[in-house]
Amino acid sequence: MNYSSVRTGVLGATGYTGRELLKLLAAHPRTSVVLATSQSEAGISARRVVRSAPDLPLVRVEDADLSSCDVVFSCLPHGDSARWARRARAAGARVVDLSSDLRVPDTDEANGDEIAVYGLPELHRERIRGCRLIANPGCYPTAALLALTPLLRRGLISGPVVINAASGVSGAGRSAKRELLFAEVAEDFRAYAVGNVHRHLAELRDQSARLANGATPELVFTPHLLPVKQGILETIYVPLSRPLGTDPMAPWEEDFGAEPFVTLVRDGTPAIQDVVGSNRVAIAVTPVEGMASPLLIVSAAIDNLIKGAAGQAVQNMNLMLGIPETEGLSC
Amino acid sequence: MNYSSVRTGVLGATGYTGRELLKLLAAHPRTSVVLATSQSEAGISARRVVRSAPDLPLVRVEDADLSSCDVVFSCLPHGDSARWARRARAAGARVVDLSSDLRVPDTDEANGDEIAVYGLPELHRERIRGCRLIANPGCYPTAALLALTPLLRRGLISGPVVINAASGVSGAGRSAKRELLFAEVAEDFRAYAVGNVHRHLAELRDQSARLANGATPELVFTPHLLPVKQGILETIYVPLSRPLGTDPMAPWEEDFGAEPFVTLVRDGTPAIQDVVGSNRVAIAVTPVEGMASPLLIVSAAIDNLIKGAAGQAVQNMNLMLGIPETEGLSC
Amino acid sequence: MNYSSVRTGVLGATGYTGRELLKLLAAHPRTSVVLATSQSEAGISARRVVRSAPDLPLVRVEDADLSSCDVVFSCLPHGDSARWARRARAAGARVVDLSSDLRVPDTDEANGDEIAVYGLPELHRERIRGCRLIANPGCYPTAALLALTPLLRRGLISGPVVINAASGVSGAGRSAKRELLFAEVAEDFRAYAVGNVHRHLAELRDQSARLANGATPELVFTPHLLPVKQGILETIYVPLSRPLGTDPMAPWEEDFGAEPFVTLVRDGTPAIQDVVGSNRVAIAVTPVEGMASPLLIVSAAIDNLIKGAAGQAVQNMNLMLGIPETEGLSC
Amino acid sequence: MNYSSVRTGVLGATGYTGRELLKLLAAHPRTSVVLATSQSEAGISARRVVRSAPDLPLVRVEDADLSSCDVVFSCLPHGDSARWARRARAAGARVVDLSSDLRVPDTDEANGDEIAVYGLPELHRERIRGCRLIANPGCYPTAALLALTPLLRRGLISGPVVINAASGVSGAGRSAKRELLFAEVAEDFRAYAVGNVHRHLAELRDQSARLANGATPELVFTPHLLPVKQGILETIYVPLSRPLGTDPMAPWEEDFGAEPFVTLVRDGTPAIQDVVGSNRVAIAVTPVEGMASPLLIVSAAIDNLIKGAAGQAVQNMNLMLGIPETEGLSC
Repeated sequence: MNYSSVRTGVLGATGYTGRELLKLLAAHPRTSVVLATSQSEAGISARRVVRSAPDLPLVRVEDADLSSCDVVFSCLPHGDSARWARRARAAGARVVDLSSDLRVPDTDEANGDEIAVYGLPELHRERIRGCRLIANPGCYPTAALLALTPLLRRGLISGPVVINAASGVSGAGRSAKRELLFAEVAEDFRAYAVGNVHRHLAELRDQSARLANGATPELVFTPHLLPVKQGILETIYVPLSRPLGTDPMAPWEEDFGAEPFVTLVRDGTPAIQDVVGSNRVAIAVTPVEGMASPLLIVSAAIDNLIKGAAGQAVQNMNLMLGIPETEGLSC
Repeated sequence: MNYSSVRTGVLGATGYTGRELLKLLAAHPRTSVVLATSQSEAGISARRVVRSAPDLPLVRVEDADLSSCDVVFSCLPHGDSARWARRARAAGARVVDLSSDLRVPDTDEANGDEIAVYGLPELHRERIRGCRLIANPGCYPTAALLALTPLLRRGLISGPVVINAASGVSGAGRSAKRELLFAEVAEDFRAYAVGNVHRHLAELRDQSARLANGATPELVFTPHLLPVKQGILETIYVPLSRPLGTDPMAPWEEDFGAEPFVTLVRDGTPAIQDVVGSNRVAIAVTPVEGMASPLLIVSAAIDNLIKGAAGQAVQNMNLMLGIPETEGLSC
Repeated sequence: MNYSSVRTGVLGATGYTGRELLKLLAAHPRTSVVLATSQSEAGISARRVVRSAPDLPLVRVEDADLSSCDVVFSCLPHGDSARWARRARAAGARVVDLSSDLRVPDTDEANGDEIAVYGLPELHRERIRGCRLIANPGCYPTAALLALTPLLRRGLISGPVVINAASGVSGAGRSAKRELLFAEVAEDFRAYAVGNVHRHLAELRDQSARLANGATPELVFTPHLLPVKQGILETIYVPLSRPLGTDPMAPWEEDFGAEPFVTLVRDGTPAIQDVVGSNRVAIAVTPVEGMASPLLIVSAAIDNLIKGAAGQAVQNMNLMLGIPETEGLSC
Repeated sequence: MNYSSVRTGVLGATGYTGRELLKLLAAHPRTSVVLATSQSEAGISARRVVRSAPDLPLVRVEDADLSSCDVVFSCLPHGDSARWARRARAAGARVVDLSSDLRVPDTDEANGDEIAVYGLPELHRERIRGCRLIANPGCYPTAALLALTPLLRRGLISGPVVINAASGVSGAGRSAKRELLFAEVAEDFRAYAVGNVHRHLAELRDQSARLANGATPELVFTPHLLPVKQGILETIYVPLSRPLGTDPMAPWEEDFGAEPFVTLVRDGTPAIQDVVGSNRVAIAVTPVEGMASPLLIVSAAIDNLIKGAAGQAVQNMNLMLGIPETEGLSC
């Protein structure tokens, strides 16, 4: 394969994630977009959707020539995506699946299907290099796992972890739903999926368990809907088995200090505007003084459409193909 | 009729206008809501839609007992509303139709149908008193007509009037449409219906012609979509046949100085936050100095859901029934 | 005292809380505003600040005739307010102090000064009736205490309580600060005072301890700044000493079921738009299934300027003077 | 001069324009930032202000070594900027002044001072190439002049032109002012400087007169404040001396068809989200049918911080130094 021009395809190119991916791939120095699908806007040019995209007609996914692509990104809806990811694999393409379908591989393992690698490069870089099927992480889990990994790996968590998260509206997708109308969301703020019922929990638990080597902590996860377009902030409360010492950030420094897309914030805590538009996660840690047992607050912010979706997908593609990891991404 | 408890019905009670009307009627000291319809939410209680509304089940409009009401307000979609307004009249109710169906009565006149009175109380108070069928004005025309009436009546306009208008998103209704999603509207601003193609123009022209006694001025009307929930601001440019003298606001003072819902702004120009939540229109006039021919800027702000819809409908009901005009309304 | 016209004064009338109070007092059927102070806008009419307020000139607080008032509300800055509250008491007025100065009465007790009653009517109604000096609660503590009271009273809390809170920008006051500019706050979301360093904690702890009869739970409190004008939502995580039984809301029903300003939400959790503009708190409880030890999420929403400040101040005045508690307030 | 590394300095680097300029210059392949000044934040690193900027300390402008720069950009306040621009010229640097100080060169001509070239590349490209002092246009005039140039040049305007403009809040600068607080601006919309009193009019008139060869049209300009961070939309009403023919966009096509930063919109009219983040202007033209005399609506959108300020400044620098015009800019 000549990596100076990787041929890419985007399934589901007109949602928020698909459009972000078109933008990133159009600007990426080593890729060209050769296929883009849309059910609702088939027939129009991809350039009408993203100004910098090539002037190629959107096709329905059923009509897509998957074999024309070196890499296929699927932004299709959960439940529908895995099927097309597997077809793209059968057609010879490498695949990054941005849905949740392949992130918890229990059933796939049981069925003997090809197992997707969980595409969080800061955790699984070596497995991603050279693999052919990637499950791109969810936006909430991306922030939470990067925030918690140093504690999980070191067995430092001693009780239920409360993940209080808030996301911009683009995280809910671009389908016309009344509850996502401007006049409903503006000047409002609400929790949803309260009581540990969000789809992302399965993935969060599965990955946490792997990182913690069995000493799996309990997780409580509450997402909220923010009146902003883009961005996720998570404020995470962690009971620790022992205090972290004079530099509480040392474990993150050790695990992520050299990561191009991880920013460790030492003055204050991150805001979503610190990361919107970039592929970075910004993390801060704040011990709570005066508690009977040590408690740590870990704050993490990402752009849900970039590090939480399309940017991370490109980062995974770069790794998979041996392209420099940061190419085409803002860090 | 015992006006201590006027029985009212709201057709189309779950849109933004219908809900505002439920709120106003629930708080009004002389009315009770006895009927509320909804196609999409039939079966649930009106109280689920508006907390202060009575606990009566929403019914589909086909199942509504229109004869149970003294006054029926129709917030049904344009094109569908007139039919139900006429049925409510046939059932014996007085009717305020908030759609555009009955605002330009040419066809109705030709057909010999009952003609609706155009319900702009500051212009047509006497005709509204005691009438039985009211066409409640559009939101944009309400602001524009109140802004321009003193000039139209006095024949002071000498050329095309430019009405540059901007409305909050609730003006577009509560149907789920992709272009009204928060992630589309936030941080954006756009014109629409550019080039004199907006539905409200017919009504604007018809009323202007009546006010101007035939010397009808040309109108250019450009609406814009604002990233706010509620409110309309119109900045109107009027070529004058002669300068207005030392107090340019004198004609408005003369025509509207005693109006409870008209505020004449003498220091600066109105902002939408000056009127949101009230049934008022705020108007300012600013002569542009140094022009070859005199030019006046008239600024007008209203709450599109109140003075531009539900509040004006209640004002009309008050007049129609002989209730004090400001009752149940904030001025 | 003739309660048909209580003479009220507002110190610091041009901030967000002061203006809200002017509005409420102007609309209240039993009060008239006879005094309003402002350092930055002295000389202009109160009507310029709040349209419905009387046309009386704002004076500097040093020039105010405190003895002209039956009730004085102080919205002056923390640190400055107590002094003026005490002067108003010396001048014979009853006082509601909206600052934090008098909320934790340790020093006052030591000094032998008049002790203010903590003005949370749902907890201290009897002590408020007839008292003469009230410390109006902070906005965050109002929501948190009403959310937690049934658990605190019953000794049901078995570990650190995480109070994750978010407030609209008006909570930060109306002083011109760069970090509160629209271009900084819009499209952003951030935590502040992370690590239990917020001023409201002292008050929260003091009141919690009184409610819990010594079995004081540990509190972790993290406020966030929301890109909305008004409203507070708190998502509170409570480790319980035992599960709550088949109706987890029973304790709230028992304690607050008859309260006019408490809404218990049984379908879903409250959003800030459910309460903005009213003096209500909306509370929901959600047990988290499948935890090793029982964990409850309590959600609470208020309007920070109304139940969190000006509305509660009026509710306190009503009680203090024997006026019906809900008069002049929206519930 | 070795253009592979142009040494640049930014005076006033911590306002919205200065920060945008730091970002663009840090990402530009041929420039390095060697100087950045700030009065309020002197001493801290430029990297604290803009993450991608070099780690050099901000200095007060009085302490700046202007001779260290090949090109100096002044984002200092109007009234103060010209003085520093002239000092930078005396120190040998080329200068782009982003204030309004040098845009209307009457006084400078009278004084015999060096005359700045008005830096609108689409109009004055040849004069910009190789010049040493540039007055960077205002944001509103940039959009208006690009919208109107084809009509001005061809003498097609026959009466007063109404420029109805709306800008995001960043256009008002980053100083802490009460009227720019989030809680004031959100959910609001207002006109300001109504009645042709805005500072930008002098510049608009001067440039229009030059383009129209003396047949100067009258201009009426009304700016409005939008509740968005960034972006300008202008809706411009132009009385024409004759209709424009079958393709009304032909004059713009002829004048700007090859311009990299001008987008001619043929389906609909531009929204600010079409251009935010880019250095482009998007223009559409809509003839109003049925008028007694021909009237054209020209719509234009830019990002006020990029094409309206920092991006255009970089475009000017590129031209001045012979660097490809689009380098470091998004088109």
